[in-house]
Amino acid sequence: MRHVFLFDAEPSDGDLRSLLGGKGAGLSEMTRLGIPVPPGFTLDTRVCAHFRRSGGEYPEGLPAQVDEALAAVEEKVGRRFGDAANPLLLSVRSGAAISMPGMMDTILNLGLNDETVQGLAQTSGDRRFAFDAYRRLLQMYGDVVLGVPHARFEEALSELKGEAGDRAMLDADLSAEALETLVGRYQELIASAGRPFPQDVHAQLWGAIEAVFGSWDNPRAVRYRKMQGIPEDLGTACNVQAMVFGNMGETSGSGVAFTRNPSTGEKMLYGEFLPNAQGEDVVAGIRTPRPLTAAAALPGQESLSLERSMPEAFAAIAHHCATLEAHFGDMQDVEFTIERGRAYILQTRRGKRTAQAAVRIAVDMVGEGAIDRDRALLQVEADSLEQLLHARLPSPEELAAQGVLPLASGLPASPGAATGEVVFDADEAERKAAEGRDVILVRRETSPEDIHGMKAARGIVTATGGMTSHAAVVARGLGKPCVAGVGSLHVDYGRRIMTFRKVDGSATTLEAGATLTLDGTHGKVYAGALDVVAAATIPELETLLSWADEARVLRVRANADTPRAARSARSFGAEGIGLCRTEHMFFAEERLEAVRCMVLAPDEGTRERWLERIEPMQRDDFEGILETMDGLPVTVRLLDWPLHEFLPKNDAELESVAAALGEPVSQVRERAEALGEVNPMLGYRAVRVGLTIPAIVRTQVRALVEATARRRASGGDPRPEIMIPVVCAHGELVAMRRIVEAEIEATRARVGELGPIPVGTMIELPRACLVADRLAADADFFSFGTNDLTQTTFGISRDDAARFLPAYIDTLGVLEDDPFAHLDEEGVGALVALACERGRRTRPQLGLGICGEHGGDPRSIAFVARLGLDYVSCSPPRLPIARLAAAQAALRA
Amino acid sequence: MRHVFLFDAEPSDGDLRSLLGGKGAGLSEMTRLGIPVPPGFTLDTRVCAHFRRSGGEYPEGLPAQVDEALAAVEEKVGRRFGDAANPLLLSVRSGAAISMPGMMDTILNLGLNDETVQGLAQTSGDRRFAFDAYRRLLQMYGDVVLGVPHARFEEALSELKGEAGDRAMLDADLSAEALETLVGRYQELIASAGRPFPQDVHAQLWGAIEAVFGSWDNPRAVRYRKMQGIPEDLGTACNVQAMVFGNMGETSGSGVAFTRNPSTGEKMLYGEFLPNAQGEDVVAGIRTPRPLTAAAALPGQESLSLERSMPEAFAAIAHHCATLEAHFGDMQDVEFTIERGRAYILQTRRGKRTAQAAVRIAVDMVGEGAIDRDRALLQVEADSLEQLLHARLPSPEELAAQGVLPLASGLPASPGAATGEVVFDADEAERKAAEGRDVILVRRETSPEDIHGMKAARGIVTATGGMTSHAAVVARGLGKPCVAGVGSLHVDYGRRIMTFRKVDGSATTLEAGATLTLDGTHGKVYAGALDVVAAATIPELETLLSWADEARVLRVRANADTPRAARSARSFGAEGIGLCRTEHMFFAEERLEAVRCMVLAPDEGTRERWLERIEPMQRDDFEGILETMDGLPVTVRLLDWPLHEFLPKNDAELESVAAALGEPVSQVRERAEALGEVNPMLGYRAVRVGLTIPAIVRTQVRALVEATARRRASGGDPRPEIMIPVVCAHGELVAMRRIVEAEIEATRARVGELGPIPVGTMIELPRACLVADRLAADADFFSFGTNDLTQTTFGISRDDAARFLPAYIDTLGVLEDDPFAHLDEEGVGALVALACERGRRTRPQLGLGICGEHGGDPRSIAFVARLGLDYVSCSPPRLPIARLAAAQAALRA
Repeated sequence: MRHVFLFDAEPSDGDLRSLLGGKGAGLSEMTRLGIPVPPGFTLDTRVCAHFRRSGGEYPEGLPAQVDEALAAVEEKVGRRFGDAANPLLLSVRSGAAISMPGMMDTILNLGLNDETVQGLAQTSGDRRFAFDAYRRLLQMYGDVVLGVPHARFEEALSELKGEAGDRAMLDADLSAEALETLVGRYQELIASAGRPFPQDVHAQLWGAIEAVFGSWDNPRAVRYRKMQGIPEDLGTACNVQAMVFGNMGETSGSGVAFTRNPSTGEKMLYGEFLPNAQGEDVVAGIRTPRPLTAAAALPGQESLSLERSMPEAFAAIAHHCATLEAHFGDMQDVEFTIERGRAYILQTRRGKRTAQAAVRIAVDMVGEGAIDRDRALLQVEADSLEQLLHARLPSPEELAAQGVLPLASGLPASPGAATGEVVFDADEAERKAAEGRDVILVRRETSPEDIHGMKAARGIVTATGGMTSHAAVVARGLGKPCVAGVGSLHVDYGRRIMTFRKVDGSATTLEAGATLTLDGTHGKVYAGALDVVAAATIPELETLLSWADEARVLRVRANADTPRAARSARSFGAEGIGLCRTEHMFFAEERLEAVRCMVLAPDEGTRERWLERIEPMQRDDFEGILETMDGLPVTVRLLDWPLHEFLPKNDAELESVAAALGEPVSQVRERAEALGEVNPMLGYRAVRVGLTIPAIVRTQVRALVEATARRRASGGDPRPEIMIPVVCAHGELVAMRRIVEAEIEATRARVGELGPIPVGTMIELPRACLVADRLAADADFFSFGTNDLTQTTFGISRDDAARFLPAYIDTLGVLEDDPFAHLDEEGVGALVALACERGRRTRPQLGLGICGEHGGDPRSIAFVARLGLDYVSCSPPRLPIARLAAAQAALRA
Repeated sequence: MRHVFLFDAEPSDGDLRSLLGGKGAGLSEMTRLGIPVPPGFTLDTRVCAHFRRSGGEYPEGLPAQVDEALAAVEEKVGRRFGDAANPLLLSVRSGAAISMPGMMDTILNLGLNDETVQGLAQTSGDRRFAFDAYRRLLQMYGDVVLGVPHARFEEALSELKGEAGDRAMLDADLSAEALETLVGRYQELIASAGRPFPQDVHAQLWGAIEAVFGSWDNPRAVRYRKMQGIPEDLGTACNVQAMVFGNMGETSGSGVAFTRNPSTGEKMLYGEFLPNAQGEDVVAGIRTPRPLTAAAALPGQESLSLERSMPEAFAAIAHHCATLEAHFGDMQDVEFTIERGRAYILQTRRGKRTAQAAVRIAVDMVGEGAIDRDRALLQVEADSLEQLLHARLPSPEELAAQGVLPLASGLPASPGAATGEVVFDADEAERKAAEGRDVILVRRETSPEDIHGMKAARGIVTATGGMTSHAAVVARGLGKPCVAGVGSLHVDYGRRIMTFRKVDGSATTLEAGATLTLDGTHGKVYAGALDVVAAATIPELETLLSWADEARVLRVRANADTPRAARSARSFGAEGIGLCRTEHMFFAEERLEAVRCMVLAPDEGTRERWLERIEPMQRDDFEGILETMDGLPVTVRLLDWPLHEFLPKNDAELESVAAALGEPVSQVRERAEALGEVNPMLGYRAVRVGLTIPAIVRTQVRALVEATARRRASGGDPRPEIMIPVVCAHGELVAMRRIVEAEIEATRARVGELGPIPVGTMIELPRACLVADRLAADADFFSFGTNDLTQTTFGISRDDAARFLPAYIDTLGVLEDDPFAHLDEEGVGALVALACERGRRTRPQLGLGICGEHGGDPRSIAFVARLGLDYVSCSPPRLPIARLAAAQAALRA
């Protein structure tokens, strides 16, 4: 059986990648494209399987196949392996079908021994280069094949430097003689450890091959595969390739070329190179690399560019880059080496790029006819569009890699990033902002009295409150970044200081005026000023999104609670509103008091009077929203208050409510205290309130129905839908639907024809999923509220998770992802799937949507697309992400 | 086909009950036993089906079959239907296979007309009796068969009374002449409404039969069946029976006999009768009935008893009662009528009884050889044993029926009932109790400083706090009734008043010293003193439970947290501890401060020092528990704190903790505030704390392992198991198990062999059920914590449910049952079933138990028995209930 494949051999029938590994398949593919890849061959993964199964044996006939392939390589390069005068050097590398970066071993410069090193010195004309290559081989081979600890080589090197007078000297400063000495010492070191370094180059080669196949089972690789879920029996291939050297003088060099500008996406060859250097020197960054093109060079330094200094090699590389980009249909990141004027391509891969570049490249390449629209849509990572929509910081992981750690974590309550000086007071925020200063408003919590300060601030941080707290809701409405519920934050207004306290007891205290940077996208707070990248405007984005709209099956709606948010949603491409949270309409100061009075009313009569005041406000809002969304569905969720947000927070508010109600403060306080809850998330809310105080429901339905009638009277096409939240039992839905429909009928009798008003339910509790078959009998649609469904399924309050959830994900590895960022498919997703299946069994035409924050997460969108949901609904700024993700889900289906 | 069956006919092949209905089958069964039942016959349920299908037609040949049966009845009674001189009267009653009490119609005295009424007057010698019977027939027939509104008859009656001079006079005071006049007016009334009353007695009979079959489809019956889930096509039978009259003079009478004393269970004929009266007169309670036996009569009134006044009839009835009890194998409640010295049995049914009587009867009947043990076990309602174990009030429903409504509802935190005067202060409670007064301690919440007052009080009421609050835990430990978390209660310590406020705004205020009654079993508080029934001691209970232990498959463990509770558990028959809540060990005052210091420690070092102080306390407790439960499993749950219970509640406690820690109060306060949570139920608890502060886990494991070693050193057989709570992800279990096992190994190395210590997990979150297959890979057992599982599955916090859950169940009918009292099979139960199935798929030998409060609920026990769980675990006083319920589940399987 054929086990050894030259890079230019015809591909076998099976899957090239699983046969030759990713690296081998790539080298083969490039070679067959006519790209000048240093010649070589691959021992396939079946050899690895045989090797492991047999305990270290090779398939019969393998040596002969290797010899034959080696002869072909010698023929192509014009050098012979082990030839003392003009030796061929080889690299031996592993490469599995699935990439396992850094997990397995590589050996370079194979083929050097005490004889051939002299030949290399001769042919290269560089004795130092030859011995440097030799000592590197000894070190790698000693370590990888013969098991001599790496540190022993470092010690020997350090000792030699000491003898040369400077233990701290750079390797590059070692003379040829010193390196020759080192080669001797390395050989002694290896021999004294057991087995001497083989002078026989074929023994070297087989030692290296054995090490590569053996490395599949090294503990690090086993652990990595286990973690990544890579099958044990996949096995690695082994790639043997002729060495080329970029450090053979001034007509040699190494570099990296991007086929387009990875920052902007502009079509141009972009990259850098170093003359007389190996690839690792470019990476090491000790010497300053030069630009590839004259255009990219500093004025007057154009001659240093590759384009001018080695025009032929440049032309060859540019040609190969174009070939590769066209072949792979995507921007490439290409490693090249020039050996004495001859360009070799060592590797090509998909080039990393900014979101901005990704969009432009995808759209440009369609314009150039290089790829089709589907391909373009799949080339842009949907989540990356977030970068274009908000000011931002590098991710917490990137910052951590730079040693920048957050002071504290909280909830990512409103996306974006901002830097400014800390103020603790809304008036002060306004005053300082008026002076042109950037301020960050830090509060224990916010209330309507703080809104002017929130408007003036660049960003908001609160110590308490969740994703639906006043601060979070208002900040999202204002488009300001906000980190809410920073549990470790203690604000002392009196002393004008804030303290961040860690679990280990350590604390950081900042005074008013200190500089703070916040990342509302990730829920992090940093000390000092970090560089905030502004939001970008990309004309190509609209083009890409219009293609996405054609490709996708999922409809895309917005979560929007006010006419203003509805307008923003339309500008981002919303096809309706999937979640209009009626309680959010109450946060404006003049409304909040009426709501507080309604909540704290001493009797039903008083409550209804305050409801009467609220009704026209809701009606006007509904009318504005229906007008903005004319002809599109608007799903109005009946009241699901965060009750504590509607209770007076201090004596002044309490007194004001008492005065409005005409009652003693003590009584109102007592009533407010009685409404306090142990677990508000699992408490008196939503349908539970609606069924026990149906007057609230009737008011809301009336307001919506009257707004609908007005829109129809104005010639509009209003499409309201009513959604009942937090249902856990079929009886709740039946009883609530009865109240809702009775009110619709009663109002219809007064205002005339309204068109259909579907009534559905939010599915946000595990039990609702389990009884979905019964719920569907009385629901026109289901909308999955995956935020609360995640909280109850996991038993984790998002507002309280800061003390353990970050550790679960980052340190302890107990969870792979934040289930509030990506829908947990195993648990929550299983319940969603169950509910879809059971619901549709009862009512095949049941409408299905998702309106939790997962509605804007690409991975979650792909999941719900597989379940066959009709739409996703997300916050307006995430609509572009959702549109693209929905298109990708459709294309991948 | 045969459709008409005489009561003494041989039974048909099929199911008698579904053919003849419940009533018809019973009459047939009694008749065939030789019991003197007034003769009659049944038209079977297939007639009903035919009648409904055909739109009111009867099967062919039915009239002939009825005529034939009627002739047989006439023969037996010696009277003829429609005979002017000596008429046979009939009753016509419906009766379906499933009882639908009061839902369908009955007509009595059929066969009277203007002629036969004279014959009845003649033969009875009582003209008034005859016309009273006739006017009753007219009223029933007019209403039921001819559709004349009932109210019209009432009006006519009222008018007649008016003419007689007194509209308020009793019916019984109407003279024979007045009744004769009424008969005439009723006939006019009926005729004027459309159809006259038929003088043809056969027309009467067929009209009544049609009404009975037609009544199956009356709207009330249809609604009732829909509610109860009774199939529509079941249909009713129609029973035609000769009338007998207990009001034919002093040798006639009616009464009720229990075959045993329904209060005590004593074997004796027990009941009462009225001479010269119909059955409804006994029920109406206008005349004072007389005892059946001389023994039950007041001294000197023995002659009034049935035994003395009609010895032959008494002997016959006693004989029939014995026959019926022996036949049905259970105590019977028998209705009889004596017509001119001849005793007839009209009905027999299972007699209602107290729990005490139920136990005694069951055990006695086995002793008498009347039934076997299995039958005895099934005859006692497991839940009713609750009545024997605690002092109690009538149920809230029973009290409501008497017009006694609770002031407020709270959580049923500790069972039992108590009456006493309100005190707001522990010292005062102790002082007054020392004076011999019964006090009820009412607090906003309790803390360790209140324990002496709790010990002195008869019962405890708190305004805040859940089922795991200090008050609840301590009250259960003390065996005192407690209602916790009465949300509508506001306590003003300063003014020494308490106010209960309803949702509608109304309020009731009570001062210190007012009398209050509390029902800790149902979580209700009543104003004033209600009669509290003391707990009973029944020697037969032990016998019954020993039989239950032999019959059951499920093992029964206790939830017990202290050596004292463990001893109580063993006395109630525990076969181990299923749930030892380690945090409950911390509630004692001297321990609580150490725990507070541990929680609020500024750094890890300090925390570990405080943990060191806690460790010996835990170790001693564990040792005591393991000793009490020697040879039996003891499942220790690792810390699952209700965090807020362990934080200082006031300045004094805060200062004390600060002093102990040697820190400024302000810093400790800040830290305590930072630990406050929005939703503690979904917050930082259990495994989440254990993984982030593993020192706590290590301390607990060490304490348990050392206690185990000590027990082994003392020759004991300790069987500890470790349970990890609140797991939602497999990774948590893996990481926690690693910590636990490392500590076991480390300690084992020091203390020597320990025997196996299984490690399992509590399943109390929906996600844990969904990933049970993965959890089972690393869990030796699952124990279902159905309290929290119910809370998260429903999204209902038990501590906050008072505002809507009672309304859901009682008023709105949204839920059939309280899911915290009976495991919700449709939702929570489905998750439990899923987890069992998935868990066992991974690990067939997986141990399975339930340790939520449902573990002591018979209906839930039956459910988990069907799922094949290994054990239930409940609070010690519910163990007898669980043992009996488990036996019943096994017998019914």
